[in-house]
Amino acid sequence: MSPARTDHDSRRRDVSEAVWQVLAEHGFGGLTMRAVAAALGSSTGLVTHYFAGKRELIAHALDILEVRTAQRPRQAAPAPGLAALRTQMINILPLTPDAAAMNRIWVGSWDVALSDPDLFAAQSLRYERIRTGLRTSIEEAQRLGELPDGDAGRLATSVLAFTHGLVVQALFDPERLPAATQTQLVDDFLTALAR
Amino acid sequence: MSPARTDHDSRRRDVSEAVWQVLAEHGFGGLTMRAVAAALGSSTGLVTHYFAGKRELIAHALDILEVRTAQRPRQAAPAPGLAALRTQMINILPLTPDAAAMNRIWVGSWDVALSDPDLFAAQSLRYERIRTGLRTSIEEAQRLGELPDGDAGRLATSVLAFTHGLVVQALFDPERLPAATQTQLVDDFLTALAR
Repeated sequence: MSPARTDHDSRRRDVSEAVWQVLAEHGFGGLTMRAVAAALGSSTGLVTHYFAGKRELIAHALDILEVRTAQRPRQAAPAPGLAALRTQMINILPLTPDAAAMNRIWVGSWDVALSDPDLFAAQSLRYERIRTGLRTSIEEAQRLGELPDGDAGRLATSVLAFTHGLVVQALFDPERLPAATQTQLVDDFLTALAR
Repeated sequence: MSPARTDHDSRRRDVSEAVWQVLAEHGFGGLTMRAVAAALGSSTGLVTHYFAGKRELIAHALDILEVRTAQRPRQAAPAPGLAALRTQMINILPLTPDAAAMNRIWVGSWDVALSDPDLFAAQSLRYERIRTGLRTSIEEAQRLGELPDGDAGRLATSVLAFTHGLVVQALFDPERLPAATQTQLVDDFLTALAR
């Protein structure tokens, strides 16, 4: 790779890092060309070299979020069925500072996603993918007799609702909902489903 | 009341209505002095007469949201205990177009609330109030033998998590989650708790 190319890639990474930093601190409401320039310690002119405007900046922010979410450290499920379902829920929750930062940005992205048809569609599809993953574990748990029979699709919707709602409450009340309490609530929830 | 006073009040109501309209369509990300002026069919100058800047505009938006939420039509609980808990959940969900618009704005407000210490504190307190209301019904349901004994505060957190997560999913997938399906999911959830 040529030195010029390496510089370019490294500069791109710096810009992405600055966008992430602005999002984590100020959310989408604070994501401006000027704020990214400040985080980068550069001129706004340099930032406009990468993003034509606010829309491109938001699109890039969502790309970074998607990539970092896909690459985040995750627990492996110890067994299929109910144990896998529990692990899927645990992997979503803000149990570590990194996971909290990522969730803060996901929750913040809902405001823009609800107003933009393309982002809305992408978000709806993402939910569909998560529900499909949960559903697979629910059906396996039902086959194993760990969960009672019932509409697995509807149950996947409930499990995702509970998990996302817990994310929001934990972000707004981290002292009352430390990692151990969040995990306990997941276990209570699954115990009630399994009865 | 003097005609001047009446004009002033009526103009304030128009401005509030314009702020609400912008929020419902474009969320907090689209809430600018210019967008409010456009919705009002006025100059930006007139809007700056009411709001010194973006921060005042957001504060006003949250005031309207709080007032409209308090005044929204609500079902009365048919009985204390489990029935009251169910009604409290139903009254939060986006079961009507008006309730969907209000929830869209609540979910959108999380991005700004997560970044601003005052708004953050107000939101945490609001959650605490909702949980206290849910907890009262849960304790009554436990006394009536409608719910098994257990930590009522922890259960209130679970109930609110499930309800808010369902709000978010329903906003992003209104066709898959019409009012009847949301209600069914609430009933499934409560049935699992009561077992």
